[in-house]
Amino acid sequence: MADPEAVGRAFLDYFYGLFATNRAGLASLYQDSSLLTFEGSKFQGQQNIIQKLTTMPFQKVAVQRDTVDIQPSISGGILIFVTGKLMPEGENMPLKFSQAFHLMPTPTNSFVVTNDMFRLNYG
Amino acid sequence: MADPEAVGRAFLDYFYGLFATNRAGLASLYQDSSLLTFEGSKFQGQQNIIQKLTTMPFQKVAVQRDTVDIQPSISGGILIFVTGKLMPEGENMPLKFSQAFHLMPTPTNSFVVTNDMFRLNYG
Repeated sequence: MADPEAVGRAFLDYFYGLFATNRAGLASLYQDSSLLTFEGSKFQGQQNIIQKLTTMPFQKVAVQRDTVDIQPSISGGILIFVTGKLMPEGENMPLKFSQAFHLMPTPTNSFVVTNDMFRLNYG
Repeated sequence: MADPEAVGRAFLDYFYGLFATNRAGLASLYQDSSLLTFEGSKFQGQQNIIQKLTTMPFQKVAVQRDTVDIQPSISGGILIFVTGKLMPEGENMPLKFSQAFHLMPTPTNSFVVTNDMFRLNYG
């Protein structure tokens, strides 16, 4: 694969761009085997994951990435680990979060999210 | 592999038990291809990783796990994502942290850490 660092950062730009304003647009990143654990709740498959992501209690949210770590995976994919802050529209207090992804490249020079784990980091 | 959730939690008990009191004892969990990113600094291989882990500015540290998420990986291994708090001996303020692991099973019914990413979550 291309430089994991560059691929990972391009993925994050794309992912959080859609996460901020159009979470339904994330559907193409997930497949039927994809796993999401969101605040401890488990979802599998594109349909279940997008249903979860599109029914969160805010429409638009600003996403600030504070740290990004990227490593190649023994699977041929890459691992990404993000910490940052979410600021839902209309809220004043940023919510700290951490998120880990595993991506796999596709034959069409794109990638899919095989694993996604998200946590808010309460005080 | 056995139930990823059970394997992952057994790994965390072992890992943080040694991390708390005897970080040199973690050596057998890492191989020459293992990757550690610690607060953004990258280390590869058992020797470099253990050197980093054993020269941190505290000897004993209490580790509290607040959240643990575990998923099977397409590689045949498992992904683990932890948030929690460290309390170094002699300090009064807990340090929030997040950590992501990728483990691979070994032929001897054990596992190795292929990927380890650690971040302190500052306020």
